[in-house]
Amino acid sequence: MIRIKFQQSLDELKERLLVMAGLVEQAIQRATEAYTSRDYSLCEQVRNSEPTINRMELEIDQLALDLLAMEHPLAVDLRFILAVIHINVDLERMGDQAAGIAMRVLDLGRQSKVDLPVDIPRLAQLASAMVRKSLQAFIEGDADLAQSVLMLDDQVDEINREAFHSLTTLIKGQPDSAPQALDTLIISRNLERIGDHATNIAEDVIFWVRGADVRHHVVSV
Amino acid sequence: MIRIKFQQSLDELKERLLVMAGLVEQAIQRATEAYTSRDYSLCEQVRNSEPTINRMELEIDQLALDLLAMEHPLAVDLRFILAVIHINVDLERMGDQAAGIAMRVLDLGRQSKVDLPVDIPRLAQLASAMVRKSLQAFIEGDADLAQSVLMLDDQVDEINREAFHSLTTLIKGQPDSAPQALDTLIISRNLERIGDHATNIAEDVIFWVRGADVRHHVVSV
Repeated sequence: MIRIKFQQSLDELKERLLVMAGLVEQAIQRATEAYTSRDYSLCEQVRNSEPTINRMELEIDQLALDLLAMEHPLAVDLRFILAVIHINVDLERMGDQAAGIAMRVLDLGRQSKVDLPVDIPRLAQLASAMVRKSLQAFIEGDADLAQSVLMLDDQVDEINREAFHSLTTLIKGQPDSAPQALDTLIISRNLERIGDHATNIAEDVIFWVRGADVRHHVVSV
Repeated sequence: MIRIKFQQSLDELKERLLVMAGLVEQAIQRATEAYTSRDYSLCEQVRNSEPTINRMELEIDQLALDLLAMEHPLAVDLRFILAVIHINVDLERMGDQAAGIAMRVLDLGRQSKVDLPVDIPRLAQLASAMVRKSLQAFIEGDADLAQSVLMLDDQVDEINREAFHSLTTLIKGQPDSAPQALDTLIISRNLERIGDHATNIAEDVIFWVRGADVRHHVVSV
């Protein structure tokens, strides 16, 4: 009976984290959509979702703490709760990155539109795929799927590196586009960081499921 | 007797976290010193410290996990272990930011030196002060000292905002300095993020000591 109640509490913890994850995914999607569509009401929506995401982070941490204190979980359950504690932090910081993008998109809106040599939609698509896959891996406890997220991170880093170089070259040739280029550079780094957080989540899923730590590509069982 | 052993384990956990913190502080200090002195061997040292910092992160997490599993800590002890788990992540990511700075300093070294309107040493000094104070607060369990870190964060954010604007203006006037200006912009953001991580640490100390969550300026006891 106690065991069933504990399992229900773990399910509730997972459920809450997924609700929060949904809000964060939505914020990322809106922020990048705002970049493409120049629909600035989306930026406002991203900013408005921050307090809710922040509140959920605190509630999830409290629930995890209560479970640790009252249920003394062991092995896979303990690793699950620790994974949730880590993922919770990453989700909240992804939300911050989405808010950062929204801020830069608003800044871009105050300036004339210029063509920039950075494929932000492609970068956004990759970063969002990483987020989606890492969360799917968490939902299903699928370490293989989590592993696939780690590969995507290299692609995101590569695009980001290229963005840095092509924007630098552009600015030299067209100094008037500097403000727009800098905003776009920051957005591309925000997306890279979202990818980093998704990588962290994937690593936490692998740790939870396999009991192996794959962070920093060191495998310690 | 068991209680004494448990206290020793907590002390060991704290000790290890502080050793790691020392390495991270050193990395930040070397990276920012490299910016000023253009001594590129310091950048190499920063990069060389990364594997050790990463390994320590894994070891500390494992130790925290063992303590949770074997000792079933409660209340303030449980909050302490959770604070360590959080701080551990922040320290490792500060190390990443220091490595990021070192990379940009190396890139700056491949270019001609230009005067830039950003006081990186001042920003570095503030960010380092935040790191030092947040760790001091952790060592002493001093929530008031931790609170003072939160104030410094606003200053760092302000300098960073100004850096963005003054570098944009500079680039427009001197497009040839774009590569150096962009490197410096990234460094200033790396330092801002180090300040953010110090803020997180300070908040975790307050949570541990007072049992109150001050993240996002919501106080929940």
